[in-house]
Amino acid sequence: MRIRVLGSAAGGGFPQWNCGCVLCRDARAGVPGVLARTQASLAVAAEDGAWLLLGVSPEIRTQLEAFPALHPRATRDSPVAGLALANGDLDHVLGLLSLRESHPLRIFATSAVRRGLLDGNVLFRTLDRFPGQSTWTDLPLGEEVPVVPGLALTAVPTPGKVPVHLEGLTAPSPEDSVALVVRSQSRVLVFAPSVASPTPALSRVLLEADAVFFDGTFWAEDEMERAGTGHHGARTMAHWPVGGSGGSLEMLATLPARHRFLIHVNNTNRILRDSSAERAAVRAAGVEVAEDGMELTL
Amino acid sequence: MRIRVLGSAAGGGFPQWNCGCVLCRDARAGVPGVLARTQASLAVAAEDGAWLLLGVSPEIRTQLEAFPALHPRATRDSPVAGLALANGDLDHVLGLLSLRESHPLRIFATSAVRRGLLDGNVLFRTLDRFPGQSTWTDLPLGEEVPVVPGLALTAVPTPGKVPVHLEGLTAPSPEDSVALVVRSQSRVLVFAPSVASPTPALSRVLLEADAVFFDGTFWAEDEMERAGTGHHGARTMAHWPVGGSGGSLEMLATLPARHRFLIHVNNTNRILRDSSAERAAVRAAGVEVAEDGMELTL
Repeated sequence: MRIRVLGSAAGGGFPQWNCGCVLCRDARAGVPGVLARTQASLAVAAEDGAWLLLGVSPEIRTQLEAFPALHPRATRDSPVAGLALANGDLDHVLGLLSLRESHPLRIFATSAVRRGLLDGNVLFRTLDRFPGQSTWTDLPLGEEVPVVPGLALTAVPTPGKVPVHLEGLTAPSPEDSVALVVRSQSRVLVFAPSVASPTPALSRVLLEADAVFFDGTFWAEDEMERAGTGHHGARTMAHWPVGGSGGSLEMLATLPARHRFLIHVNNTNRILRDSSAERAAVRAAGVEVAEDGMELTL
Repeated sequence: MRIRVLGSAAGGGFPQWNCGCVLCRDARAGVPGVLARTQASLAVAAEDGAWLLLGVSPEIRTQLEAFPALHPRATRDSPVAGLALANGDLDHVLGLLSLRESHPLRIFATSAVRRGLLDGNVLFRTLDRFPGQSTWTDLPLGEEVPVVPGLALTAVPTPGKVPVHLEGLTAPSPEDSVALVVRSQSRVLVFAPSVASPTPALSRVLLEADAVFFDGTFWAEDEMERAGTGHHGARTMAHWPVGGSGGSLEMLATLPARHRFLIHVNNTNRILRDSSAERAAVRAAGVEVAEDGMELTL
C-alpha cells in the first residue's frame, strides 16, 4: 500500500488567509522549521493508476498537480479511481466541486454525509450533468466495502458533530464523522482527522493499524481562546486535544503501529514549529507531524 | 489604481486536473513559453489595504498567499475590503466558501447571482454564522455603486447564461453575467470574463477604459470538439471566440485602451503557447495574454 500526504493542515490551511499570528507569519516568511501546509487529504493505492483519495480539500487542484502519480495519462483521464469522505466539513469535501470537468467520479461516504451535501445544495448538480458522472456509495458503519482495485474501506464512527453549515438544521448522527480504515491484503491504514474523544471501537482498529493519521487539530482545549483567534474549546469543535494529561498523544504513544502521524493540524497548534516544546513531546512519543508531500509504503 | 492578476485561466485552471492534452502536458512539464495558470481573478485597489477582488476562484488561498499586499497585518485581519462577482459560475465564486474563518466579508453581485448562490445552497450558511459575517450588496445593472475606499463599480450586462448547476432550474436573466467596470477618480478598468457576443452598452464602456481584461476562453467556436475534450460550441458556453473573422480580437484591436488583456483562458486555447500562430495574432493586435502575478498601475 502506497500512501501520499496531499495536505496536512486543518480547515483554512497553514498559513490561514486572515491570520497574522506568529506561526502564520513565520510560515509566510519561509522561516526554517515552520512549513506551510495545504488542507488535510491522503492519496492511497495498492495498484498503479487506481488511487483512492481520503478527503477532497478545497486545494485539490494544487495537490493533484504536485504529485505526478495523479496526473492524467491520456487526453481525458485521471488515476483517481475513488474519493472517500470522513465527514461533511467544508475543508474536507469542497474540492469535489473542483472536479466537475465531465469526469466520472466514484464517491464513498456515509449516508448522513452524502445527504448533508446533496440535499439542499444545488451546486452539486454540477456533478450530475450526465448519467454516471458521480456515483455515490454509502459506507455502512463498521462494514467493509471494496472501493478501488486492491483496497477495501471501513467507516468506524468517531465522536463528532454535524458540519458548521448544518448546525440547527440536522440532528446529530453517528454517521457525521468516521475514521476511514483502508485495508490492502495485509496492511491497514487508519485516517481519523476528526475525533472528539476515544471509543472502544476506534481503539480496536488503531491497535491493528500499520499506519495511523490522527486528529492533530489542537494541542490544548483552550488554544483558540489563548491565540486570540476564537472562543470555542477544542472538544466543542469535535477535536480531542493532543497534549497534556488525557490528551491523544498519550494514547498514540502506546500504539504498535510503525507509522503514527498527527494530521489536520490547526494554524494555532505549536507542533507546527519544529523547535517547539510541543513538537519535542510529539517526537518523544514516537509520533510525527504529517507534512505535505510525505510518502510511505506499507 | 493598482491591479494584480491573481489568476488568468478559465474554469479548471491550466493545466486541468483530468486533461492530458499537449498544452496541459507541456504546462505540467514546465516547457518554456507554456505557463501554468490558476483560475481567473483580479485584485484592484486605489488605496493601500483596501483591495477589491473581482471573482473569488476556488484557488483563492494560493492566490492570496502569492501576493504580499493581501497578507494580514494583525492577528485577525485582511486587506481584502470587498469581493465582486461577475457571474455565478463555480470557477468564479467557489472561493467564497474558503473565506469562512469568521471574517466579515463584503460581497457585491447582481441579485440574480446572489439568489443563485444563497437560495438552495445550505453550504453558504457557513458565511452567515454571526450578524455581519457576510454583507451582500446588490449591483443594479448600469448603476455605479461605491465599493471600497477610492473605487466605484458598475455592472454592465453581457450576453451570458445561467451557471451550469442552475440550468433547467432558473430562467435566464440579464443579471446572470456582467462586465465589472471599476472606476477610481480618473481611471477605468473593465473586467469581462464571460461575454457571449458584443453589445452597444459593452462597447461604450470598453471605449472609455484604460485597461481591459476580456473573455479569452476559446480561440475558435469548435475548439472543444477539435481537442476531443467536449461537444459544446464556444457561444453555447457563453464565450465569444477570440480568433477569426468576427472574433473578439478584431474588436479589441480597435480599442484605445493602453492595456488590453485576454483572461479566463481555457486549457484548449493555443494562445497559451507563446510560440503559437494564435499568440502571434494576439500580439499583432496589440493585445496581451494575462499571466498570474502580473501587476499594472493606471
